[in-house]
Amino acid sequence: MEYIEVRYKLTGSRGEARAMARDICYEQTVEFPSDLLTDKSIKRSVVGEVETVTTFAPDSHEAVIHFPAAVASKELTQLLNLLYGNISIKPGIRLLDFTLPGSLYKQFKGPRFGYAVRELAGVNERRALLSTALKPMGLSAENLAELAYKFALGGIDIIKDDHGLSDQEFAPYRKRVELCQAAVEKANRETGGSSIYVPNITAGFDQLPQRLTMAAQTGILMVLVSPFLTGLDGMRWISEQESHNCAVLSHPAFSGTYVISGTGGISHRALYGKLMRLAGADGVIYPNFGGRFSFTREECESIVSGLTEESGQLKPAFPVPGGGMTMERIPEMVEVYGNDVIYLVGGGLFRHSDDLVENCRYFRKMVST
Amino acid sequence: MEYIEVRYKLTGSRGEARAMARDICYEQTVEFPSDLLTDKSIKRSVVGEVETVTTFAPDSHEAVIHFPAAVASKELTQLLNLLYGNISIKPGIRLLDFTLPGSLYKQFKGPRFGYAVRELAGVNERRALLSTALKPMGLSAENLAELAYKFALGGIDIIKDDHGLSDQEFAPYRKRVELCQAAVEKANRETGGSSIYVPNITAGFDQLPQRLTMAAQTGILMVLVSPFLTGLDGMRWISEQESHNCAVLSHPAFSGTYVISGTGGISHRALYGKLMRLAGADGVIYPNFGGRFSFTREECESIVSGLTEESGQLKPAFPVPGGGMTMERIPEMVEVYGNDVIYLVGGGLFRHSDDLVENCRYFRKMVST
Repeated sequence: MEYIEVRYKLTGSRGEARAMARDICYEQTVEFPSDLLTDKSIKRSVVGEVETVTTFAPDSHEAVIHFPAAVASKELTQLLNLLYGNISIKPGIRLLDFTLPGSLYKQFKGPRFGYAVRELAGVNERRALLSTALKPMGLSAENLAELAYKFALGGIDIIKDDHGLSDQEFAPYRKRVELCQAAVEKANRETGGSSIYVPNITAGFDQLPQRLTMAAQTGILMVLVSPFLTGLDGMRWISEQESHNCAVLSHPAFSGTYVISGTGGISHRALYGKLMRLAGADGVIYPNFGGRFSFTREECESIVSGLTEESGQLKPAFPVPGGGMTMERIPEMVEVYGNDVIYLVGGGLFRHSDDLVENCRYFRKMVST
Repeated sequence: MEYIEVRYKLTGSRGEARAMARDICYEQTVEFPSDLLTDKSIKRSVVGEVETVTTFAPDSHEAVIHFPAAVASKELTQLLNLLYGNISIKPGIRLLDFTLPGSLYKQFKGPRFGYAVRELAGVNERRALLSTALKPMGLSAENLAELAYKFALGGIDIIKDDHGLSDQEFAPYRKRVELCQAAVEKANRETGGSSIYVPNITAGFDQLPQRLTMAAQTGILMVLVSPFLTGLDGMRWISEQESHNCAVLSHPAFSGTYVISGTGGISHRALYGKLMRLAGADGVIYPNFGGRFSFTREECESIVSGLTEESGQLKPAFPVPGGGMTMERIPEMVEVYGNDVIYLVGGGLFRHSDDLVENCRYFRKMVST
């Protein structure tokens, strides 16, 4: 029987941890009291099984549980439910990691492009990519397009909408996308470059496909989505639309509680590494260490491993560290991330000097050396 | 200018709390350093404004912030982002409550049925409704239908799929829905009752509409969905499908981390009360106090207030307390919930005696007295 191997961190005494591990096996599958479950075939083919409970400190343990793969029903929604559905409500259980059997990995396409995002942005060498965001929210579509033009002139590879830009009256979606895409194309013609504009298509359940279609029709090659606002499977769906053939950049909005939730929640590696990749992100934005958010260097490294290590037939995805990053920190980041990374600089890009185009060029030079 | 009023609990010193409140105003809107934001019109029309920061204990404060309503873009996804997108990643900030201006409430239909779910289940008096779940997972569609038949014979009003039942091979969706619906209809003919069967339609982005259509074609009147697996807006979409006209029952799978996240996350009232109702749930399942999960009586009462208090034109929704509940606890629950409630008993229903139909009747009698 094929199984999904899941690791949980459990907080409590060793006796409590062992009881919690057994409870997880039932809670996440049959949701039925074990003493009332008399059907041996269900016990064998549906209920999870505790493999090990390892104690690392008096109140800190790691359980390895095997769940029958059939319970996941080949669906991302049900896989999420199996991994962390009901137990999200129980304290002291943190989802650390999971490994799918090869047959289940095959149900997921994962990143369509992965490192080939470089080719979309016309980059033929194996170097780090540069990205920035169109902001602040409140600018008109025309002003955002002007910014996009300057960023492209300055050689930024990936110019994305700020993730809060939706369809607000001050910069409606269609107008913004058309003007920003045209502005970047104009800059590309002037420089001979091939910067790409990445609109935010995060939207309601029925609007999301329309925004994707509108983007693809405008010639967009990559889109931004916040999968914890749309549902993680919405991103999986976007990435599988062959007719649109857009790469996907994921934004962590509304997901942070899972990782910063102390003894509960989901590890950085499992959430921003493995789940985002499984759900088709080609690049995964997350707050870099040392920025205005609270991730540590080790947490960021664990994300990178989740995005890149062997996982069935899935391509690796780009880490996209950002959030309060400044150009001064790039050398340290090169040390951690190497070349397979997309750097995201937002407001910090405006600080270096008054000349935005020059700031972009400086940023590009910093990364290239 | 219309605004959304949001309350956050902030953990830290008073000075830190004041700085956090100011930071939230920028982080959730322009995502731009305040010293670089020179455009006064954007400051006025986009950035949030701190109304008050009230200190309740040396390290515990409550901030009231007003965000311009236009930022929410009339979309649930962007509203969620505005309320708790980026700051979900920052420690010490808990979303306590929010109030929309009337014009924004009008963008949301909220519960289509609300208390009129009673009529769907043929209940003409203002009494508590009874519900249970088809489980354990692993039973065949035939066996689940047999269970549904017994529950309906015993007078359970609402017979729902266990939320982990998806499209697994042991009980595929279409077969399960057809057999369970037929079984409940058969029992209704025999008893003269009008129990309803509620299938779980939680599924992938492209599968969800198909499962809803299949359910509606089978004569289903209410569906179950786990909105934190599908995306909250997926539930909003389901509830607005007039042609299908199904009531919606929400399940809290994968959402628990937000409420149990200590100093971060989202309050019970805001998440299971206000957001679920705004997103169209007619009944909201959550773990009752004293069950196998960890909610307190006060937290449950706060959910009820969020589901029922005046909120624009939105109808109230039913609280559906469940989770490890036993029949013995019903009297205490009547005290807290009164008559406008749907009681959910799962495994506990099997414990009273060996005769499942009799157990249902006993349960029904307990609630009616």
